[in-house]
Amino acid sequence: MDKNQEPGREDILKAAKRIQPSLNRTPILTCSFIDAVVGATVFFKCENFQKAGAFKSRGATNALLSYDSYDIKNGVATHSSGNHAAALARAAQLKHIPAYIVMPENSSKIKVEAVKGYGGKITFCKPTLVSREEKLNEVLNETNAFEIHPYNNYAVIAGQATAALELIEDLPGLDTIVSPVGGGGLLSGTALAAHYFSSTTKVIGAEPSGADDAYQSFYQKKFIPSINPDTVADGLRTSLGSLTFPIIRHLVSDIITVNDHATIEAMKMVWERMKIIIEPSSSVALAMVIKHKHRFAGQKIGIIISGGNVDLMHLPWL
Amino acid sequence: MDKNQEPGREDILKAAKRIQPSLNRTPILTCSFIDAVVGATVFFKCENFQKAGAFKSRGATNALLSYDSYDIKNGVATHSSGNHAAALARAAQLKHIPAYIVMPENSSKIKVEAVKGYGGKITFCKPTLVSREEKLNEVLNETNAFEIHPYNNYAVIAGQATAALELIEDLPGLDTIVSPVGGGGLLSGTALAAHYFSSTTKVIGAEPSGADDAYQSFYQKKFIPSINPDTVADGLRTSLGSLTFPIIRHLVSDIITVNDHATIEAMKMVWERMKIIIEPSSSVALAMVIKHKHRFAGQKIGIIISGGNVDLMHLPWL
Repeated sequence: MDKNQEPGREDILKAAKRIQPSLNRTPILTCSFIDAVVGATVFFKCENFQKAGAFKSRGATNALLSYDSYDIKNGVATHSSGNHAAALARAAQLKHIPAYIVMPENSSKIKVEAVKGYGGKITFCKPTLVSREEKLNEVLNETNAFEIHPYNNYAVIAGQATAALELIEDLPGLDTIVSPVGGGGLLSGTALAAHYFSSTTKVIGAEPSGADDAYQSFYQKKFIPSINPDTVADGLRTSLGSLTFPIIRHLVSDIITVNDHATIEAMKMVWERMKIIIEPSSSVALAMVIKHKHRFAGQKIGIIISGGNVDLMHLPWL
Repeated sequence: MDKNQEPGREDILKAAKRIQPSLNRTPILTCSFIDAVVGATVFFKCENFQKAGAFKSRGATNALLSYDSYDIKNGVATHSSGNHAAALARAAQLKHIPAYIVMPENSSKIKVEAVKGYGGKITFCKPTLVSREEKLNEVLNETNAFEIHPYNNYAVIAGQATAALELIEDLPGLDTIVSPVGGGGLLSGTALAAHYFSSTTKVIGAEPSGADDAYQSFYQKKFIPSINPDTVADGLRTSLGSLTFPIIRHLVSDIITVNDHATIEAMKMVWERMKIIIEPSSSVALAMVIKHKHRFAGQKIGIIISGGNVDLMHLPWL
């Protein structure tokens, strides 16, 4: 694919084919209790069962497998405290190239261990965006590695689109697909997949009210950055990117916010009723659907469960 | 089936057919991380995804669907603080008969809510076996309900056997199946299923060392009751029954104990790595396999994950 061009139909189909041998086709689960709560039929696309525990493996793997091997011969690098770090380390391991990961020194031990487990080379930095970017630049200069941004990258977006592609293939005729929105990689990919493969399906973004930059940007029709985000959904604190925002603005039907209390309740409901581990960032989507259930009454709704990486020593309801 | 005769091949096949429309054929999951830890290939039969969150639905549903409607026209009754209570309430709801459940007054709120959610009629008692049995007798006298014992009942055992039957159907040639053992309903059913449908597969019971009555009974070749059981595995504190012990003694290859520390570690490993919720009683089986991995090196092992009903407010590692 052309790195500088928005992914089209063929780019998404090729991404799906490219990543298929290395990743899981994740299951789609349902829960009669939750259907009764919502008053609709909800299909959960379970990326918590994806390799490295989140959809992020799709984007990182597609990027590394689609780039010219010469361009990434010195390895790849990113700054991330979360799922993209482990996903990139795993993808680099598949390509037998190093992955340099800049992580804030206060990153959770389990996330650090996950990156190390996939052979990632970690450089710690102070937990500020300035320090992360400075340290990443140092690493890039020292190693000549290729930066793989967690979402502002068309190959990553095409990879993330494959989650919704699989959902659409397995379940034609969905009325709505809901995806959480942080930097917008998953939401823009989902919107592209629906646009090309299920044009009657609406795509809606769900965002924490304490980190509502996508909601603000969508309605003010201009980029509004995330300033002092305050939410339990640690994967959704980032701002939209220059590549993700235009796709979202063009193809997403709505962005709706929900507060952390509802997110934690939804997370606990899924753990108790579905017996699966989902992370707070994933729970935002169900929380929003429950809170706004009158908008979805009787629909067939797909919800993308973005990941299942949770620090089990610190659960948000305890 | 004949209520008074040990389930045979046909009884188990009929039970599977009988319960199939009302229950889930649960998935079988694998985890490459756990395979590497054990040095074997482990297949998890996930009864945590069963209706009412545990294999207990198989036995309760088979009993209620196989009994003469006249015998149970006044409803069914049991004493249980655990998964059998919810399973029986759900099965009775399917038959449109009442389920009278005697529960200790200190039962967890979530288990009480589950029974109520399936329409069960709860009578509370003191948290002693004497009080439970006295109160159940009162209820039986008042209601003329039919008692459905959680494990000492051949129709229940035939139902529990269907979990291993499905595992064997989906995965021929397993070397070993491991099941946790409390009262022995699941373990005796598993042993019968292997005996009739996969006679080269060994069946091993895993038991908490703090509640090792099955281990003691198995090796002393006589019934030894569980006295003052002390284990985090709340479903495994009961003693073997007069119907389950002979089957276990005859058909089970071994019973191996494991301590609670290892059980809690195994439970956390499954939550973290497989992203599924399993209860402590289920974790005993994996903990035993990890601790004794030299015995299972290179094997194809089936582990029955018995259930996923956990009080999320009180996790054993916190």
